[in-house]
Amino acid sequence: MPSRLFAIVAATDTTQVTVTTDTMQEAAAADVVWLGRAPTSVQVVKSPPNVPNGFGVVNMIDNPLTLGPDLSSKSIGKAQGFYALASQEEIALLMAMNFVFTQGKYNGSTITILGRNSVLNKVREMPVIGGSGLFRFATGYAQARTHMFDLKTGDATVEYSVYVKHY
Amino acid sequence: MPSRLFAIVAATDTTQVTVTTDTMQEAAAADVVWLGRAPTSVQVVKSPPNVPNGFGVVNMIDNPLTLGPDLSSKSIGKAQGFYALASQEEIALLMAMNFVFTQGKYNGSTITILGRNSVLNKVREMPVIGGSGLFRFATGYAQARTHMFDLKTGDATVEYSVYVKHY
Amino acid sequence: MPSRLFAIVAATDTTQVTVTTDTMQEAAAADVVWLGRAPTSVQVVKSPPNVPNGFGVVNMIDNPLTLGPDLSSKSIGKAQGFYALASQEEIALLMAMNFVFTQGKYNGSTITILGRNSVLNKVREMPVIGGSGLFRFATGYAQARTHMFDLKTGDATVEYSVYVKHY
Repeated sequence: MPSRLFAIVAATDTTQVTVTTDTMQEAAAADVVWLGRAPTSVQVVKSPPNVPNGFGVVNMIDNPLTLGPDLSSKSIGKAQGFYALASQEEIALLMAMNFVFTQGKYNGSTITILGRNSVLNKVREMPVIGGSGLFRFATGYAQARTHMFDLKTGDATVEYSVYVKHY
Repeated sequence: MPSRLFAIVAATDTTQVTVTTDTMQEAAAADVVWLGRAPTSVQVVKSPPNVPNGFGVVNMIDNPLTLGPDLSSKSIGKAQGFYALASQEEIALLMAMNFVFTQGKYNGSTITILGRNSVLNKVREMPVIGGSGLFRFATGYAQARTHMFDLKTGDATVEYSVYVKHY
Repeated sequence: MPSRLFAIVAATDTTQVTVTTDTMQEAAAADVVWLGRAPTSVQVVKSPPNVPNGFGVVNMIDNPLTLGPDLSSKSIGKAQGFYALASQEEIALLMAMNFVFTQGKYNGSTITILGRNSVLNKVREMPVIGGSGLFRFATGYAQARTHMFDLKTGDATVEYSVYVKHY
């Protein structure tokens, strides 16, 4: 089981499409990838009455995965799944999502992430719990960093750095 | 950690109960298992208005696991969990489900699957991310193939081939 | 990858806060931890009409993790996520939750669990599918045992014993 390292820089909950360039990391290929959304994050479950911090809300997401934070960035796939607001004291999500690659060297493969995302923290780490295709038997972790957040529109750009070991 | 291979052939979203026979694969036991449903897949979350392809829908499932595709097939358990329509461009699911074995050699054990199911693709691969009992520490993958789909009733029969490594 | 064993004794769906003492297990440290809830488990998705056993219900949870079953127990974090009633024949849950440690030696780390919880069984085993921080690359299992259930209030105290291997 050779190990492989790469970085995904991605944006969630944003109407902006974004771009960047590939970078290299020592001893491993690194892709810098971004996620953007149009209105691709929609609330499907509401919070019950009298519950703080949106506890109980569920949003379905279908965010573009791009090669960078700019609008002109190349799209290489989607991040599809949902997040649930699972804390009464802060904005902390349970996130379940699949990174679906439809372009580039990971075309046709997926990565599955399930973990906790406390969105106001600078770095949030979530486990990579599996994958398909090239990422069969994948295990690893993703680190999410908010790149941009527009208070007026609610748009955000979030960078994902994903490290996986796989066959 | 000895590895073990077996195949589950299963049907989701079908009112048909199904049968088949056990087969052997080289160097490993292989069970051919099928999933059927009565009205055992129900929508619990609706799609928001003006969203394409049912994006946002969540269905809870409690499908019989059987040893084949026919109505007379022996039931060996259930597939319980949910799927969410997580794409605006195609019918692509985030599926989270437990295969619960209540008969046969896996009786009392479970297998947990979480991944992406693009239902119109011929073969859909999803990660096996864990299990219990005999499948403690399981890792592997499931390949889903649609065996039958009835446009009139919406019933479908889907074959699952599951490969796991476990203790 | 050194392996590490510890036990979490926790309570879900209870308004009681609980306490206990640390115990030691052979060859491994063991923490006895409990989960309690105030009104920290709320239904966010209803069961469809004419469906047995609450099939389809989804509850969001944000339960305190404590060091024991008593009200005076030290809180060391939260269990955040959801459970879905995924059986028409019994009360069997698909549970997805993150144990978030905010005190003690696991402070800042998380454990992610996804599996099946047949709540009336004496012992329910669910896979640990990942973690973050100290529990990066974690794999293992959790065993849940109901410690107390109050039929009048619906409160319950559930003990979780969690075994993980991690870096």
